[in-house]
Amino acid sequence: KKIVTLAGDGIGPEIMAAGLEVLAAVASKINFDYTVEAHPFGGAAIDETGHPLPEKTLTAAKEADAILLAAIGGPQYNDATVRPEQGLLALRKALGLFANIRPVQIFDALKHLSPLKPEIIEGVDFVVVRELTGGIYFGEHTLNDRSARDINDYTYEEIERIIKIAFEIARGRGKKVTSVDKQNVLATSKLWRIVAEDVAKAYPDVMLEHALVDSLAMKMITNPSDFDVIVTENLFGDILSDESSVLPGTLGVMPSASHAANGPSLYEPIHGSAPDIAGLGIANPISMILSVAMMLRESFKATAGAQYIENAVNKTLLEGVLTKDLGGTASLSEMTAAIIDNL
Amino acid sequence: KKIVTLAGDGIGPEIMAAGLEVLAAVASKINFDYTVEAHPFGGAAIDETGHPLPEKTLTAAKEADAILLAAIGGPQYNDATVRPEQGLLALRKALGLFANIRPVQIFDALKHLSPLKPEIIEGVDFVVVRELTGGIYFGEHTLNDRSARDINDYTYEEIERIIKIAFEIARGRGKKVTSVDKQNVLATSKLWRIVAEDVAKAYPDVMLEHALVDSLAMKMITNPSDFDVIVTENLFGDILSDESSVLPGTLGVMPSASHAANGPSLYEPIHGSAPDIAGLGIANPISMILSVAMMLRESFKATAGAQYIENAVNKTLLEGVLTKDLGGTASLSEMTAAIIDNL
Ligand SMILES: CC(C)[C@H](C(=O)O)[C@@H](O)C(=O)O
Ligand SMILES: CC(C)[C@H](C(=O)O)[C@@H](O)C(=O)O
Repeated sequence: KKIVTLAGDGIGPEIMAAGLEVLAAVASKINFDYTVEAHPFGGAAIDETGHPLPEKTLTAAKEADAILLAAIGGPQYNDATVRPEQGLLALRKALGLFANIRPVQIFDALKHLSPLKPEIIEGVDFVVVRELTGGIYFGEHTLNDRSARDINDYTYEEIERIIKIAFEIARGRGKKVTSVDKQNVLATSKLWRIVAEDVAKAYPDVMLEHALVDSLAMKMITNPSDFDVIVTENLFGDILSDESSVLPGTLGVMPSASHAANGPSLYEPIHGSAPDIAGLGIANPISMILSVAMMLRESFKATAGAQYIENAVNKTLLEGVLTKDLGGTASLSEMTAAIIDNL
Repeated sequence: KKIVTLAGDGIGPEIMAAGLEVLAAVASKINFDYTVEAHPFGGAAIDETGHPLPEKTLTAAKEADAILLAAIGGPQYNDATVRPEQGLLALRKALGLFANIRPVQIFDALKHLSPLKPEIIEGVDFVVVRELTGGIYFGEHTLNDRSARDINDYTYEEIERIIKIAFEIARGRGKKVTSVDKQNVLATSKLWRIVAEDVAKAYPDVMLEHALVDSLAMKMITNPSDFDVIVTENLFGDILSDESSVLPGTLGVMPSASHAANGPSLYEPIHGSAPDIAGLGIANPISMILSVAMMLRESFKATAGAQYIENAVNKTLLEGVLTKDLGGTASLSEMTAAIIDNL
């Protein structure tokens, strides 16, 4: 099994190293054989080659069995013409990573970090499924001096395949899909709702509800335990999946997976590259480590390995081993070592 | 002064009546002379004339000095071809109501309603300024069987005038503008950020910061007291202004104003028509009543009148007079009477 790693920028290399340490430890427990191939990506690749997604990196990614990405970006690229994010968008498109999956859960040991009252986050356990290769992200963008235009396109097929993913996930969980659109205004959302209804016919065991994006942006915070699987288009998914990180009160423990119809999946923390603390050895590696767990489960069907990691993270947090962002004093290496000890 | 009222649907007529009672009471205190002209709008107008914004209603609205709108919509129109929202969008466009203003504040007496911890909402006091007549709402919408397209357009001038409004408001308050875009992806957002920088030059006394919409959707909940004036485009503003109602924990106390470059402004509650409780006499009239206060201040420079109403609402809530949605048992008419008593 070939795993391609894209450590990227800022704290990326440190947390990637931590993720790989945990992977090595769990692999020996479950007899999982793999090779790792590191490639430049994002800002690091711009510095090295002038391009955020060098040809070689893309070729390697295409040939991988799974991809681990840590984080990209940094203030030095903010006003540049070539930017790290372009590499990420190009990678998603080139690999056809149309389904972005973000589980939202609250760790018992971290409940106090949530800005929400305990009774609100009680029982929160949902998944945000975001369409990742269509919509206004990939329509034509025209920037003139006095005007600008973006085009938002969706085809029936693009919507159908992501809605199917949501229903499949819901079937294995709480059997409820909340499909989010702005159907009272957008044509793409009108189509979205039609397709959602069509797909639902094949899943009589799963309940489908529709929500308008403005209303859902409220309910996700006021009634978060009402949701099981939330599915939406690219731009709404960008906003809502970031908003969902409000519930655990930290970006530091949330992994994500992005899947294609064929070919490798990509796993990454939902947080950014945190350039302000890069190299200090105090970054929180948990999102990265949980992304490794998602990879084991979803790409390699190594459920036991995934479970070992998730249990170890939970135990470590309950023992009070916390990095600075979680209110503790543990360093990145102390946190990683504690998780490996608890495997 | 001619005030045109559009009571609309659901609880609309009841809360409009309450708002007008309060207006009458305060008008006699401050010697404010006005006439009221009621017109059908939304679902009510569809039922009567087949159109959500009849010609006569539009003509009257154009000739008004200010417009009060209560609420529109209802389940009976959900699958109809002609829908109440179309009237609202057409009215905004026809009157050029490009600037939607939503103040976000927490009433002391209602703090417990917030899903957020008390320390998070401490000191929250900001305004969301939403562009209301441009962007993807008003670009061409194309719906085919197998695909759909929406077009997102902004001109320099459209962005400039709304950013100016934000800076003017900030100048009279906390002197900080947070401009929200998705500049790393959208051309319209790249233009948005350029214009924001250009406008900022004329306001050296006001601080400008930029935020990406995904990141702001988080920070608005985790750090709400950081904000003074948040300004954004139409679709992001729709999502973020609804999301901001999470902070007070109720839609029932939030008014809004929509302004044009010339001509009358429109004032309305941010909540919907609540068809489930329509006609029961238990709706909460406070958003409507506070919208009347905004009208007095912003359209008629009757600051004293606005202040009387706002103080009376505050006092009434502190006395524990609460409608059902606020956890109390007061009826709509009891709440209205209590507010009038406290004027
Ligand atoms: C970096 C940016 C282009 C990206 C997006 O908007 O998709 C990011 O916000 C994300 O959610 O992965
Ligand atoms: C009814 C709908 C078209 C409208 C909008 O999206 O603008 C509403 O949500 C609002 O925010 O006033």
